[in-house]
Amino acid sequence: MKKIIIFLTLLSFHISMLFSESLKSPGGKLELNFYLDEKGSPIYNLNFKNIKAIKESKLGFKLKNFENFYSGFKLEGFKIDEKNEIWTPVWGHRSKIKNNYKELTAILKKNFNDKILTLKIIFRLFDDGLAFRYEFGKESGFDHFQIIDEDTEFNIGEDLNCFWLPGDYDSQEYFYEKTRLSEIDAEKKINEEGSIFTRSFINKNAVQTPFLLTNSNNKFYMLIHEAALVDYPVMHLIVDRQKFILKSHLTPSPIGDIKAFLQAPFSTPWRAIIISDKAQDIASSDVILNLNDPCSFETTDWIKPQKYVGVWWEMHIGRSTWNYSDERNLKLETTDWKSLKPNGKHGANTDNVIRYIDFAAKHNFDAVLIEGWNVGWEDWFGNWKEDVFDFITPYSDFDLKKIVAYAKSKGVKLIMHHETSASVSNYERRMEQAFDFMLKFGYETVKTGYVGWIIPRGERHDGQWMTNHYLRVVKKAAEKKLW
Amino acid sequence: MKKIIIFLTLLSFHISMLFSESLKSPGGKLELNFYLDEKGSPIYNLNFKNIKAIKESKLGFKLKNFENFYSGFKLEGFKIDEKNEIWTPVWGHRSKIKNNYKELTAILKKNFNDKILTLKIIFRLFDDGLAFRYEFGKESGFDHFQIIDEDTEFNIGEDLNCFWLPGDYDSQEYFYEKTRLSEIDAEKKINEEGSIFTRSFINKNAVQTPFLLTNSNNKFYMLIHEAALVDYPVMHLIVDRQKFILKSHLTPSPIGDIKAFLQAPFSTPWRAIIISDKAQDIASSDVILNLNDPCSFETTDWIKPQKYVGVWWEMHIGRSTWNYSDERNLKLETTDWKSLKPNGKHGANTDNVIRYIDFAAKHNFDAVLIEGWNVGWEDWFGNWKEDVFDFITPYSDFDLKKIVAYAKSKGVKLIMHHETSASVSNYERRMEQAFDFMLKFGYETVKTGYVGWIIPRGERHDGQWMTNHYLRVVKKAAEKKLW
Repeated sequence: MKKIIIFLTLLSFHISMLFSESLKSPGGKLELNFYLDEKGSPIYNLNFKNIKAIKESKLGFKLKNFENFYSGFKLEGFKIDEKNEIWTPVWGHRSKIKNNYKELTAILKKNFNDKILTLKIIFRLFDDGLAFRYEFGKESGFDHFQIIDEDTEFNIGEDLNCFWLPGDYDSQEYFYEKTRLSEIDAEKKINEEGSIFTRSFINKNAVQTPFLLTNSNNKFYMLIHEAALVDYPVMHLIVDRQKFILKSHLTPSPIGDIKAFLQAPFSTPWRAIIISDKAQDIASSDVILNLNDPCSFETTDWIKPQKYVGVWWEMHIGRSTWNYSDERNLKLETTDWKSLKPNGKHGANTDNVIRYIDFAAKHNFDAVLIEGWNVGWEDWFGNWKEDVFDFITPYSDFDLKKIVAYAKSKGVKLIMHHETSASVSNYERRMEQAFDFMLKFGYETVKTGYVGWIIPRGERHDGQWMTNHYLRVVKKAAEKKLW
Repeated sequence: MKKIIIFLTLLSFHISMLFSESLKSPGGKLELNFYLDEKGSPIYNLNFKNIKAIKESKLGFKLKNFENFYSGFKLEGFKIDEKNEIWTPVWGHRSKIKNNYKELTAILKKNFNDKILTLKIIFRLFDDGLAFRYEFGKESGFDHFQIIDEDTEFNIGEDLNCFWLPGDYDSQEYFYEKTRLSEIDAEKKINEEGSIFTRSFINKNAVQTPFLLTNSNNKFYMLIHEAALVDYPVMHLIVDRQKFILKSHLTPSPIGDIKAFLQAPFSTPWRAIIISDKAQDIASSDVILNLNDPCSFETTDWIKPQKYVGVWWEMHIGRSTWNYSDERNLKLETTDWKSLKPNGKHGANTDNVIRYIDFAAKHNFDAVLIEGWNVGWEDWFGNWKEDVFDFITPYSDFDLKKIVAYAKSKGVKLIMHHETSASVSNYERRMEQAFDFMLKFGYETVKTGYVGWIIPRGERHDGQWMTNHYLRVVKKAAEKKLW
């Protein structure tokens, strides 16, 4: 019996090798191996120098109506490509960015009933990292389809040290924790940090990306993250604390088991592994920037990075308030906002804003952000309320015309604040009008906020619908040359 | 032991009577009784002539954080009022409508921790019906609050005949069924009628309103329905097939146990019971019209009821198609709609629409509705797709300018069709632009459609978010004098 098992193991090893391919990074520091195992599951691993940084890890999906899209594949072939270019970012800490990688595309086929389905897995191997994405191409056999689970593995295989945030579909507001993989406990962490309003516990073993690992003698650092997050939910990681395997976990939609609603041709976000023997290389890596799509705007001269001060921190530390009044239970459409009783602590009042503009002018800040300028903050938060803000009505002590004129006279820009209170359906209805209001008063820059549980109810900050929303805001703003 | 029970029964009967009130309808045909029972639960019943049409029925709620809002009440007092007026509807089958009722308001108090909460129940008794609603007033002790269940009962108490549709959060597309209360089986009915895309089974005992009852010798007919459905989910009824009690069941939201997200002051829709010994009186009753709020538009002369023919039935019977092409898997933003391969069966082509305009002119129809005029119908349905239609791009064989000019020359109006494919978030983003497009081309009337599962995903056609949407469309259209 033992002999047969050994024989089968050897056989399967042999078969898998028939369908394997290796790739070295441009400078040879990294090596990727890819193959189909004996079950037809796509497998990759990653070597960094002589270290097996990522051990044999599975790839694939569970799809609606195609439950198993992680095994039973046949290899149609490989495509090898490479790129070495320098490009110029619109803004950032470097004026030129080098994009140099080798690319391996594995083309996989699977029979499903009468259909032949195609999945492409595209690997890009840089000298400081590996990235890969799944492509459901035009000829994939898919049209409209839904993802139940993306089963991407990062098999660490050792109990490494790691820096982590607990998995949460709605918040990143945590302090990073440093433990071994086996010691991760997201539940304990969430309980220790105490409560903010929107914390959505996933499970004890869930962490967020970026997720940093290092071995105990700090021989390497490895960051797991994602790039080109477009029309897809945010990826969390579930940690197997015995086997030290991380597995992707997509932020859910409000619909049962479905995580993403897609239409081919579609490429998932890149799954990126940035790796180096120096911690500082991780922070300064351009892998994520290189993986994001090039800027699609025709002109970008209207995007002007700036330093700013904000009428906001004084609210956070309790010196003033976003709200003008302490009255409660107001309704946006029917409240007479002019006759509210002031609480005397409203931060965004004309005199105070002028003080900030003076400070910005004196100390060479480009702009002033003002939070709490518009009506609705009395009930803004935690009420599941949909029509919280209209984004066009200033409080009566915020003299918009005067402030705009004064800022202009001082050469200081104003940054508009659109707090949505996470009522995104309300914001989407009013966004066009709100942006036109900005243009009317010479604002060029907007900060949007999403505090609270998302409306449409059941959606998550990290869900597909919201990643689409964020991009929708950027596109709509760009149409009007707002940023 | 038996004696004690009898004593307690008498005692409780006595106590409840202390808190009771009766009301007769203006002509004396109907009698309402209201009281608090021994548990402090609000109870009503309704007599029609000498028949106890609605037997002792409970009223109340389960609220988030105030689980029991159906018992433990104390009566603060009653308010009696009445109205007898004639009003003029904007349109309808009568030019004058009589609104004549007696009104009883029960003011109930309940202690909850340190708070005193107030619930008002307002009854209006007409000669052909009873209606009641719950009011959470300005001084109710509520501000933002959420409803878990509305526990309104209609205690029929007998196995009457009834005409019913199976309960369904997303569809009314059924044939009415006639059975006894005890024989209702919504599951069987749904299975028998076969499948359309959006059927959402609730349970075997769930039915929709309007729900008609009659006793076996047809001595009376009684219809249960609702009115003034604003900012609240649609009410379904769950039938107790042993006790013959109907209980309200609100359409859920995507959020766990919450059915409605409310802010005081708030009044629920009216629960209406229309009753008569003649079936035709039910159909011609003005109770529902009288219960809806008066029209709030300043002018209404731009609302012009009209008879129309539509380019749509020929699609339903398969003679032509809504879609221009049989190509599939198209994307709204990237498809070159002008170069699609036509299927040769597109209904909304210029010549065919002109044929309908000629027919309308010849036969004195006021208007022509045209479905399938705008791009997107190739993938419109059943794909969970968000950006299906843009509501402003005609198919290349629909010569909008020519059609508009021709219709004008013939004195025929055009009715715009906005099929949302139930992608309501998409429609809300594009509605303003779509209505402006209508104005530009002289359209005055719009038909909106909602075929499919609702996006925002998890919302229901009958849920609170959607009842708000329908009203939002009406208000936005009215702003622009579209209807």
